[in-house]
Amino acid sequence: MEYPSKLIEDAVSEISKLPGIGKKTALRLALYLLKQEKSNTENLSSALINLRVKTKYCRICHIISDSEDCNCDSIRKDASLLCVVEDTPDVIAIQNTSQFYGYFHVLGGIISPMEGIGPNELNIVSLIDRVKNSEGTINEVLLALSPTMEGDTTSFYIAKKLQPFDVKITTIARGIPIGGELEYTDEITLGRSIVQRLNYEIS
Amino acid sequence: MEYPSKLIEDAVSEISKLPGIGKKTALRLALYLLKQEKSNTENLSSALINLRVKTKYCRICHIISDSEDCNCDSIRKDASLLCVVEDTPDVIAIQNTSQFYGYFHVLGGIISPMEGIGPNELNIVSLIDRVKNSEGTINEVLLALSPTMEGDTTSFYIAKKLQPFDVKITTIARGIPIGGELEYTDEITLGRSIVQRLNYEIS
Repeated sequence: MEYPSKLIEDAVSEISKLPGIGKKTALRLALYLLKQEKSNTENLSSALINLRVKTKYCRICHIISDSEDCNCDSIRKDASLLCVVEDTPDVIAIQNTSQFYGYFHVLGGIISPMEGIGPNELNIVSLIDRVKNSEGTINEVLLALSPTMEGDTTSFYIAKKLQPFDVKITTIARGIPIGGELEYTDEITLGRSIVQRLNYEIS
Repeated sequence: MEYPSKLIEDAVSEISKLPGIGKKTALRLALYLLKQEKSNTENLSSALINLRVKTKYCRICHIISDSEDCNCDSIRKDASLLCVVEDTPDVIAIQNTSQFYGYFHVLGGIISPMEGIGPNELNIVSLIDRVKNSEGTINEVLLALSPTMEGDTTSFYIAKKLQPFDVKITTIARGIPIGGELEYTDEITLGRSIVQRLNYEIS
């Protein structure tokens, strides 16, 4: 594609480096910005730079934060429960359920040999230390990783590492999603949901 | 949605102001930038600012340009033909066909009473002047606007304004798109393509 100006070519080139955004969408976004107030682009531009330059990671739970201490060690409703997740969007998703009141621990990824990510690239050592140093406060670690091969591998690795400590290790329930159709559920999920069937509770 | 940091909240808020990008996509893009090199974000940010601040519009053809003179008045293969388009993406689309060698004139929009855009908001006066001052060099004006109600209204308005001058006014062919199925073409397009049928040429 030939662009009428170098400025628009540069903008399209940079925008289309973002995941899921092609050249056509990038051009549409660039032209949109051109039609908006200058302040609009200035705010976007500085929000991105600020995010990238100033963002810290909490040294305890490793969540994205404005400082190195995100107040994650303040008393929670349930201080005995620690939830291990892959990354920040998972924390947001779990908090949105209003069903979890414990602590979080962000791994910063999952074990993926294909992408060259081993246990040492993740916040696993600090997780072990955190459980060890809690002196019994944390008595349950909930592994809330995606039920994929990489997620399961990571869960298995962490569970192994936590074995020496006196903590219960749990994982999020796998089964048919609420509203899901039995008929269209894949065999593995359906099979597991039968093996791991729950007692029916009349509430 | 609650975000773990003000920085990410600001970034998500600004990114999601772009058309077609919701909060979830914005969060995904922001987290992507956080995992990339700092230079990546710096380049994106400055490309956007440069685009918005430095972009000029050519004072002759009104296309987006690095300067106020985009060389559009340099001799073209076909200097007698002027193509009128709504905006820059149309210029790019037409140039990509390699079937057009004349001049362009960008209106900067189309007449749309619903959005409060009248003829005076568009580069129509300068179009008339351009045709008038060409002293007969331009002898055909091709109206390449989208075949929508707004596009047709704009074409009609311009055609009326150009009537006093000795120029042929043409419009891009409307019909069944190449590869299109007759059966699924809407009635109006199909009807028009019968009324405006072409002589079959054996090449």
